[in-house]
Amino acid sequence: MAEIKEATVAFGVLNETSDTESRVALTPDIVTRLGRSGVSCLIESGAGAAARYTDEDYEKAGATVASRDDVVARADALGFVDRPSPELVARIGAGKWIIGMLGSFTDADYVSALESAGLVGIAIERLPRQLSSAQSMDEMTSQNSVMGYKAAILAADAYGSFLPMMTTAAGTIRPAKALVLGAGIAGLQAIGTLRRLGAVVTAYDVRPASKGEVESLGAKFLDLGLDFSKGQGEGGYARALTAEEQRQQQAAVDAKAAGFDIVITTAKVPGRKPPVLLTKAGVDGLHRGAVVIDCAASELGGNVEGSAVGKQTTEGGVVIIGAPYLASGVATTASDLLARNVADILVHFIREGKLSQELSEELDDALVVAGRAETPAPVAGTEEK
Amino acid sequence: MAEIKEATVAFGVLNETSDTESRVALTPDIVTRLGRSGVSCLIESGAGAAARYTDEDYEKAGATVASRDDVVARADALGFVDRPSPELVARIGAGKWIIGMLGSFTDADYVSALESAGLVGIAIERLPRQLSSAQSMDEMTSQNSVMGYKAAILAADAYGSFLPMMTTAAGTIRPAKALVLGAGIAGLQAIGTLRRLGAVVTAYDVRPASKGEVESLGAKFLDLGLDFSKGQGEGGYARALTAEEQRQQQAAVDAKAAGFDIVITTAKVPGRKPPVLLTKAGVDGLHRGAVVIDCAASELGGNVEGSAVGKQTTEGGVVIIGAPYLASGVATTASDLLARNVADILVHFIREGKLSQELSEELDDALVVAGRAETPAPVAGTEEK
Repeated sequence: MAEIKEATVAFGVLNETSDTESRVALTPDIVTRLGRSGVSCLIESGAGAAARYTDEDYEKAGATVASRDDVVARADALGFVDRPSPELVARIGAGKWIIGMLGSFTDADYVSALESAGLVGIAIERLPRQLSSAQSMDEMTSQNSVMGYKAAILAADAYGSFLPMMTTAAGTIRPAKALVLGAGIAGLQAIGTLRRLGAVVTAYDVRPASKGEVESLGAKFLDLGLDFSKGQGEGGYARALTAEEQRQQQAAVDAKAAGFDIVITTAKVPGRKPPVLLTKAGVDGLHRGAVVIDCAASELGGNVEGSAVGKQTTEGGVVIIGAPYLASGVATTASDLLARNVADILVHFIREGKLSQELSEELDDALVVAGRAETPAPVAGTEEK
Repeated sequence: MAEIKEATVAFGVLNETSDTESRVALTPDIVTRLGRSGVSCLIESGAGAAARYTDEDYEKAGATVASRDDVVARADALGFVDRPSPELVARIGAGKWIIGMLGSFTDADYVSALESAGLVGIAIERLPRQLSSAQSMDEMTSQNSVMGYKAAILAADAYGSFLPMMTTAAGTIRPAKALVLGAGIAGLQAIGTLRRLGAVVTAYDVRPASKGEVESLGAKFLDLGLDFSKGQGEGGYARALTAEEQRQQQAAVDAKAAGFDIVITTAKVPGRKPPVLLTKAGVDGLHRGAVVIDCAASELGGNVEGSAVGKQTTEGGVVIIGAPYLASGVATTASDLLARNVADILVHFIREGKLSQELSEELDDALVVAGRAETPAPVAGTEEK
């Protein structure tokens, strides 16, 4: 971040804490960093408490702690873990900037509401992740990484045996065998954490490139004997499979899964119904005491047929945990990372001390989904004298 | 175990499952092993369910699944995770053997009740652990090992940040700093598991010998600047400290603990009030979000002042988990190990196809706390012709 002396932009963050959300979009460290970039911070009282940051911590770092209404009234830009509710959108004054996971791929009505309210909407889900300048803004990567770590810890906690091999006077305990389905950022972090704990790990993903990534972490790539090599999706995420591919994949995965003690599924497709990676037949094939963690569980379904948010035990004694809120479960680390992501996006849009768009820039063009500047800023070198 | 062809001893195990107990004193593998040593097994229906073993699993292994009353009536010896209730003791017929954690060091009334009922009481807590022949019978070691593993997993699950160091595009996350107080079997296993997860681990124990053990696991030994070198207790367990030593230790540990993110205390002293290793002042010195796992928490108090069974958060945001039932939380592994321990004790007492005591043997002399044979069996070579 460039150093600027006087604060010219006020950045506000609200309390988003709920039963399923403990993260916060601003941390004391980032308050200090933003101060050096000419940004003053406003934070709603209590916003960081669930992520272990007190109002006093924020004040010490230089932020102003205020009421929700005050933050909304005084901030030029508001940053979110998720996104503001439609009710809140209607109350935020025109001209302000909103940075968050706006759901712009799937919720056109929401984007229209931002537009009607006269807000500038910065949609993190549209970040062009392949740009090196976007790396430090990549909230999906940072949060999926936390999710994968937590999925492995949760599996270890739920599983009734050791993960590592142990040789004791009372006999040898074999290591747990874990299967990770979906080897994106979350899956790779789950693989690494399971391996740290001593489990023997196998993984699968429809993207052929993932084989090398999986193997570089010391895990085995599951050979289904199927070819989905056209599976590489946009922006590094898996595409949805065709119905026939899904059927083939399911049958193969279901058959292979039976030998594993722990299954972690991580194939979230942003804003869409997640693909089923383990059917009821697959679950039924698992042994009593096996643990399944479905990171994609939602009201729309998950990667595991019959999974639901929360814990259930099948008649066959398989424990299925539908866990969509895992990043929130490691709230401090998750907040540390996402606050940095959001702050870097904010600072990117500050030009000559003011929030501004330059739609000729790839990042701006991708991220601004509402309140786009009517006349794109002229491209450098093409200006008229 | 020696191979004997015909079953001459009937061994019974009951269902001890409760809110805090998921373990079982017999597993299907051990049924098979015992069969080879001339022992037939009876198990109460449902006894293994919480440890993932079904009645069918036991039957396949050759056990007879029966009602509680049937098992009690037909078994020559009964094995327990814990010990039979006084009501049950009164119902077990005279002459039968009871193998369990009988609490003989602290509960003389209970031992008297076994005696009155005409039972032979084999007290696992009296195992001479230093004998090499006792290694595979050592339930305290096996269960404390499971406890230490689970304490580390529980800490990782409760802590709001990563344990390992991570370098990401959004910054570097420092590894968690963990302090393990009490470096017996449980503490060493906690150290190993925390280190697997990438935490930086320091440990402390009053036994000077533990320094080398701690360091051999790659952890640092906490230097309190105090000398409790007379701390080595009987049977490898820590003795209770004097009041003055406790005061000195507390003040030093309290002061040192402030720099840690995770504290795990494992100083259980069997049957006695556990020593306080972290006072309220020590807890108050910890940072918001720090996690304390007190494995010794009980109605008598724990290693952490103010701890109680269950989870609490202090005003300062420190999470204290009083967790006396951790071995039960890894029920399958814990049962696999303890079933082997109990079975090896049983088989030790089978001589020429029958349960018998030879009090001239060190193991027998130590373990038999009720129904001791009135005339010790003659020592080999001193028999009259």
